[in-house]
Formats: sequence, structure tokens, C-alpha cells
Amino acid sequence: MTETTEEKSVAKKPNSGAGLRGQSAGETALCTVGKSGSGLTYCGYDIADLAENSTFEEVAYLLFNGELPNQTQLTAYQAELKSLRDLPEALKAVLKLIPKDTHPMDVMRTGCSFLGNLEPEGDFSQQNNAANRLLAAFPAIMCYWYKYSHDGVEIDCQSSETSLAGHFLRLLKGESPSKQHQRVMDVSLILYAEHEFNASTFTARVCASTLSDMFSCITAAIGTLRGPLHGGANEAAMDMILSFTSPSDAKEKMAGMLARKEKIMGFGHAIYRTSDPRNVIIKAWSEKLAEENGDTSLYDISVACEEYMWDSKKLFCNADFFHASTYNYMGIPTKLFTPIFVCSRLTGWAAHVMEQRSNNRIIRPSADYTGSEPRKVVAIEKR
Amino acid sequence: MTETTEEKSVAKKPNSGAGLRGQSAGETALCTVGKSGSGLTYCGYDIADLAENSTFEEVAYLLFNGELPNQTQLTAYQAELKSLRDLPEALKAVLKLIPKDTHPMDVMRTGCSFLGNLEPEGDFSQQNNAANRLLAAFPAIMCYWYKYSHDGVEIDCQSSETSLAGHFLRLLKGESPSKQHQRVMDVSLILYAEHEFNASTFTARVCASTLSDMFSCITAAIGTLRGPLHGGANEAAMDMILSFTSPSDAKEKMAGMLARKEKIMGFGHAIYRTSDPRNVIIKAWSEKLAEENGDTSLYDISVACEEYMWDSKKLFCNADFFHASTYNYMGIPTKLFTPIFVCSRLTGWAAHVMEQRSNNRIIRPSADYTGSEPRKVVAIEKR
Repeated sequence: MTETTEEKSVAKKPNSGAGLRGQSAGETALCTVGKSGSGLTYCGYDIADLAENSTFEEVAYLLFNGELPNQTQLTAYQAELKSLRDLPEALKAVLKLIPKDTHPMDVMRTGCSFLGNLEPEGDFSQQNNAANRLLAAFPAIMCYWYKYSHDGVEIDCQSSETSLAGHFLRLLKGESPSKQHQRVMDVSLILYAEHEFNASTFTARVCASTLSDMFSCITAAIGTLRGPLHGGANEAAMDMILSFTSPSDAKEKMAGMLARKEKIMGFGHAIYRTSDPRNVIIKAWSEKLAEENGDTSLYDISVACEEYMWDSKKLFCNADFFHASTYNYMGIPTKLFTPIFVCSRLTGWAAHVMEQRSNNRIIRPSADYTGSEPRKVVAIEKR
Repeated sequence: MTETTEEKSVAKKPNSGAGLRGQSAGETALCTVGKSGSGLTYCGYDIADLAENSTFEEVAYLLFNGELPNQTQLTAYQAELKSLRDLPEALKAVLKLIPKDTHPMDVMRTGCSFLGNLEPEGDFSQQNNAANRLLAAFPAIMCYWYKYSHDGVEIDCQSSETSLAGHFLRLLKGESPSKQHQRVMDVSLILYAEHEFNASTFTARVCASTLSDMFSCITAAIGTLRGPLHGGANEAAMDMILSFTSPSDAKEKMAGMLARKEKIMGFGHAIYRTSDPRNVIIKAWSEKLAEENGDTSLYDISVACEEYMWDSKKLFCNADFFHASTYNYMGIPTKLFTPIFVCSRLTGWAAHVMEQRSNNRIIRPSADYTGSEPRKVVAIEKR
């Protein structure tokens, strides 16, 4: 996630040069993070309410339009997204040229950029179309490359699944997912959809502030989410959890990691102080999947990690930690965890691009100069 | 350029939400813009001094290493860059799939992103290699796509030219450029190389602050430079200049444009207040090329524009305005003006990525919330 454990260990400076922490860089009507009374809201709706009573498509509609859809609007929106899922042949050809060992976030970044070559946004009146196209196509970009490079299979990029959550799982697994798996993925996409001025979203807004196109903004945001201080915490958490053989083994090894001052991903947050409101939601789904699976060890180990980090460090799980076991129970390869984050956060990014455009000034801060005093070029033979 | 005429017409707000104008977002040792005594410096060297007494390769070396090279270092650096010019076959295949009418900045963005798939940076100890690879390969990415899509020609991506300026002109024209043209392009690349925390550079730093890779940072910066409030002013200036038939026609038509409050690109600046120190340099080269050409009308019209904007609006030419006629006299297609900017500014972007990494904190500002009060999700059948 955006703000990692690491953030807690960095001393806060009151002045600039420290990542603009606590400094306002603009206005937004899309999201609050860590405000009193409610941990995380999208357009005024609490994240727990949305995760319980809406779908990802409704959340995408909300972020792009400011209001939740009624049934007629939702049905039309689902149909529109369904019609936009397939990939152009030229994009498939590009994805086939990307090697198997490429970082999956590089694939997403390139797939987004290339689609912008073939289907440019045009003028800003088309911005919702561009955002919807990316929203519908990202599962296929991820899965087409993954299945071709890893299994040599050219998948069908379309499916009969109504939801994007179901569509993604269908493309990845080649069969229609269970209702429970669809709903878990749907909730996961809701939880990751939006998070105010995190680094990737802020990148999208800086890019948008030059009046660049939607594809450039989203491509830039993907590249920013790629960094290990931002995306990838759920992947790192998965690797750690899989290295533990039992709850007691987890506690013992974590003690060693803390003693060696190793980074432990999936805990703490730059903004939230006592808990991440998304954790309780995804943790509950992880538990259900563990029960469904029968082998609850991944969940049990995760709970042991949570208890140990709280007892020893007063650090709480952020959204990423129980996402690891959740995705693993659904059979999702670890390397696709961050690309799934892209499929979700795209909605927040695009909504922020639209918002930036609606009241724009180019984002161009100043810098404090720390370099050389004025000097003269010395002829090269005298250097 | 970064800061356009348009910027002058926007009222300055003292608080945030106005593009962070005047707010420090970090420290840099790379550049000063608009400081008293010297308009623009790279690592302490005045832009006029560098444009007179150095080459673009020396400036790139300076930005990446903090000091100008001696002759041995420069010779080795030139040889290294020369060895990195060719493109992988898979990248050529991707460029051939990009349609002729694609925005050339989309091509640069995609080419950069795709190269990152094939030749990832690896760890940060490789950052200079990644930056040099992009520096050497960008002329070929631009020209290979351009010549294939427009003329159906698959060009050789290597050349015997020593300088990147000469190499680019050779790839574009198919013949070795004159010494004067090489030098003009060299100076142009020097002038555009670096400009502190402009929007595209700031994007690169936000991306770098998540510890993402060099290719992601540069891809993000290209997408940001693509916006018409940032790059592209020289292209817009060219279109306008070409629409004027004479100096007097220029003044007459500009009067009409101002009366209709139309945007006139290539004038004014968000930071500079009385002149852009790059203008006098590129203007002098434009004049020399006009004399060489024999038909001085483009230059004469440009001078008339400069005089008119100063007399009527006290607006001065920025770096972009005389770049238009300069590039045109060298036979460069207008649509490649901003991609050339990329080939140059890449050096500043990469240097800022390296600097951000050397003393990093994730860039994560806050936002002022202006949205809906807390509300409850209403069941969809009741919306």
C-alpha cells in the first residue's frame, strides 16, 4: 500500500523536502483518509458500508460521476464495460513480445501506454470513455500476457461474467469462479479503489495538470505504484507468511526479523494511527476462505503475525496484510497481486484526473537549492 | 515549455491547491531558475556558458555525475553512448505496430516503457546505465517509428556520428549533417536539458520516491511533458509562425488574436519575469540558419512577433519561440519538436531521479476535502 511501515520510522520534519507530508497540494471531493469518525470514505460513503452494500462497478460509477447509480444506470454501465473488454490484435502482439520474467507492473504500464497509441482519448469530453476502456481492458492485459508468457496459451479476452471481479478470475483460471470468490474479489477491488493523494494518485494529478491525456496519467500512476514503498506490500507479506510453518514459528521468526531491524511489510501506515479500516473487512473474508478451504494455516499464521506485531510494536495490519492470504486462498499467483491493485486503483486515479482537469493549474513547485556556487566552464584540456 | 504564457493570466493564491506554486517540494543541487545574477544554471554553470563552451554529452555527464568530464572521461562516455544506440528487435517490432497518426509523445512514452520490459534497470547501482541507455536509444526510438510509419523505411538505428545531436539528424535525414546543424542541435539539447522542479521533472521525482525503477520514472515524465501546458509550445509557435506571410501580416494577425483572447504560445514564463535566458541563445542560432538558408522570412516573422508581444503586452519570448524557426530551418518535421525535447530533458529527469533516491522520502501530500458529508449507502432499488 501507499504508506508503509517504513514511513513510521522516518522523523517528521516541519519544513519541505520531506515528501510534502502534511502539506496540502490541492482539493478533492473524492476521499477522506483518517478523518475523525470514519477511517476512509469515498464521496462521503464509509468504506465498510460500500464493502457491505455495493459492488465495484457501483464504486467505479460513484468515483467517476459523484453519485451511486440506480439499477437502470448500473445495468447500462455493466453492459458498457462488458463491451469494452477485448484487446486489439496489435496490443496482443505487443503483450506476446514481453518476456515471462518481466515485472508484471512493467507489463501493465506498457499495455496501458500502448492502448493509448491505438485508441487515444481525443478531447477531454471523452475522458469517461477512456477510463472505462482501461477499466474493462486491464484484466485482459494482465491475464493475456500472464497466460501466454507462462503457459503458452492465447486466452479469449472476453467472458460472459457480469462483474469485472468475475471476469478477471475467469480469464485467469479458465472457468467461472464461485459466487464467494467473485464477491471476495469484488470487495477487494472496492477496498483498493481510492485513497486520496497517495503517491501514484498524486503522480496522476501532476501529469493531468499539464492537460496531458488519460493514458499518460494512468501510465505514470502505474509506474509510481510499482515502487516497493507503495505497491507490492501484499506480495512481500505473502512471501513472508509462506516462509512461516506455524503460528509459533511465525512469532519466533518475526522476533528475529525485528531484532535484525528487517523491514516487515503490511503493517502500519503513514496516515492511519491506530488501525486501517480496510483490514477488518479483508481479514473477515480471509477467514471465510480459510474455512472454505479446510486448511486454515495461512489464516492462522497471519493472525499470529497480527497479534505479534501489535503486542511487540503496537503496529496494526494495513489493507495489504490479509489480502495476501485472501488472494492465495483464491489461487492467485503472488506476482499478480500488485497488477490487481492497478485494476482497482485505476478508478481513483482516473477520478482524480477528471477532478484535476475540472479546476486546473499546472503543478509546479519550487525547490531549495543546495548545489554549487556559480562557476565558470573550464576548457576541457585544463580539467 | 514548462511554464507558458497561460500561467501569467492565472491569479496567484497564497495557499495550496494552486499547483504548489512557490512552495518548496524538496532540495536540489542540479539547477537554479530565475535566481538573481544568473537566469539558469546547471550545477552552478550558467546556461550561456554551457551553450558556448560545452557539448550536450558534457552536460549529460555533468548532470549525472555533478562535474564536467575531462577529455579522457568524455571520450569514454561518448564511446559508451555510441555502443548503446541500437534497438532490440522486439522494440522495433512494437514501434512498427504504432500507427502513423499516433501522437509522437505517445510513441516515446511507449518506447521507453517497452525498453524497460526488455532491459530492466535491476538494482539502483545500475541507474547510470539505465539513464545512458535511454539517452543513446531515444533518437532511434523516435526516428525508427517516424521513418517506418511515414515513409515505410526500416532505418539503421546506428550511425558513425560522434555526437547524439549528429546521430539524431543522421537518422532523420539519412545523411551526415553539416557541422553547423550538428552544433545548433547540440546547443538546443543543452538548453532544454534541465529546469528544476517543472511538472515533468516533479512527476519523475514523485515516481522515484516510491523507489520505482528508472524506466517508470522517465515514462511518467514523458507522459507529463506531453501536456500542452508543458511541452509542445514550440510546435504551437511553429504552426502560428507558418500562418503568417510577412512581418506586417504577423503583427496584424497577432493583434486580432490578442483581441479575441486567443492563446499565443512561446511567450512569458511562470518563473522568469523579464526574459528567458535561453531565448537570446537560440535566437542567435535561428538568425545564422536564416542567413545560411537565404530565405530569412521565418526568422524575420519571428522577430516581428517578438517585438509585437513585447510592445503590446510586455511579454518576452521563452526558450520555445525561436526553437520553432531554428528546427524548421534544419528541416525537422514539426511533430518531432516535442520528442526532441524528450531526448534532451531525459538528462534532467534522470539526474533528479538519482538525486531523489539519494535522500528519499515518499512524496505523499495531503488534500483539502471539499466533498459530500458522511452519508449512507441506499439500497439500489430505492435510488
